[in-house]
Amino acid sequence: MITLHHLEQSRSFRILWALEELNLNYQIQFYRRLATLAAPPELKLVHPLGKAPVLTDGEQSIAESAVILEYLQEQYDTQQQFKPQDHANKQQYRYWMHYAEGSLMPLLVMQLVMTNVPQHVPFLIKPVAKKITAGVKAGFIQPRLKDHVQFLESYLATHDYFAGTFSFADIQMSFPLQALVSRTQGKYPHIQAFIQRIAERPAYLRAQSKEQAL
Amino acid sequence: MITLHHLEQSRSFRILWALEELNLNYQIQFYRRLATLAAPPELKLVHPLGKAPVLTDGEQSIAESAVILEYLQEQYDTQQQFKPQDHANKQQYRYWMHYAEGSLMPLLVMQLVMTNVPQHVPFLIKPVAKKITAGVKAGFIQPRLKDHVQFLESYLATHDYFAGTFSFADIQMSFPLQALVSRTQGKYPHIQAFIQRIAERPAYLRAQSKEQAL
Repeated sequence: MITLHHLEQSRSFRILWALEELNLNYQIQFYRRLATLAAPPELKLVHPLGKAPVLTDGEQSIAESAVILEYLQEQYDTQQQFKPQDHANKQQYRYWMHYAEGSLMPLLVMQLVMTNVPQHVPFLIKPVAKKITAGVKAGFIQPRLKDHVQFLESYLATHDYFAGTFSFADIQMSFPLQALVSRTQGKYPHIQAFIQRIAERPAYLRAQSKEQAL
Repeated sequence: MITLHHLEQSRSFRILWALEELNLNYQIQFYRRLATLAAPPELKLVHPLGKAPVLTDGEQSIAESAVILEYLQEQYDTQQQFKPQDHANKQQYRYWMHYAEGSLMPLLVMQLVMTNVPQHVPFLIKPVAKKITAGVKAGFIQPRLKDHVQFLESYLATHDYFAGTFSFADIQMSFPLQALVSRTQGKYPHIQAFIQRIAERPAYLRAQSKEQAL
């Protein structure tokens, strides 16, 4: 039996969606975030890092979203619907699988942490905290993120999907792109159009209903 | 012809090392960091994100360390020396390829940025900056990093290499682990032993000499 260890409002929605694309039988083990928004300690019983998603399939326990997606594709996508077959698109598939969490997400996470810092410091040092975190954003995060957004916007201007037709690379990219869209208020029409395109897929909608029912 | 676009003191040492393991003919295009330590703008002529490493092979231009390593292994490791063949170790190979930059490096980069912040603020707010960055480290980075270090130390206590015998997954993991070792002063003997083990490889030493000669 396949079990998805699913943390609310997290990267593990991608796996729920992939399981729906594959029409697999699976069960969901659901975890709520703590009041601090951190993952609950029970997740450490499934994987030493205590993170989600983790997928168990029989004896195997698999972590890292891209690794789970690639595993599911290889094991269960018997008609090769969700991974391209030609060399160029296979390279793109691999690239975006790594890029999503290796390059884009770290900047988005750091930006979020910096945004939250001023709320968590004593009242008197809030102005200084705002100044310091604004400095990190302006000096380190924003110039890099600007390059990424332009890169993605121009890629999606000429591609409906990241690796040819719809593939699991699009699922992997969905999470950081949804974060980007929610922070840029529709300023990037091609990124926005991509998010709309994938959110209309029947499997996406089924995954969303299942998550809402948890 | 294969060209490695190589930035000094960066992730691209891994690719130099992999090229040496494969005994390939290649050329190196070398880039120095700016005084700010950022990558120089010329790198944007090779890839829109302006990052290193980038590998060009004929018409192809490939970014992301893990993607380059997997490309080189598939194209040029004709005897399959650097990727395991059995299912369990293949899964490990894939896991560590993604984990290195997807999970471990983001925390190390954020830790480095937080450590550098107090040096870049006006003198009068240095004490507050230290307090704030110490708070981010203690509240967000350190608890997560502690889990990672324990996870890696206990994995390496029972494994000489990350995916069976030596593979490109070890090259991918070398960069964050070297950063960890340099920040933890030998407190983690199995991580330290791994770093020593890989740094004794003839191809590693050749890559090191080539880099020093640039």
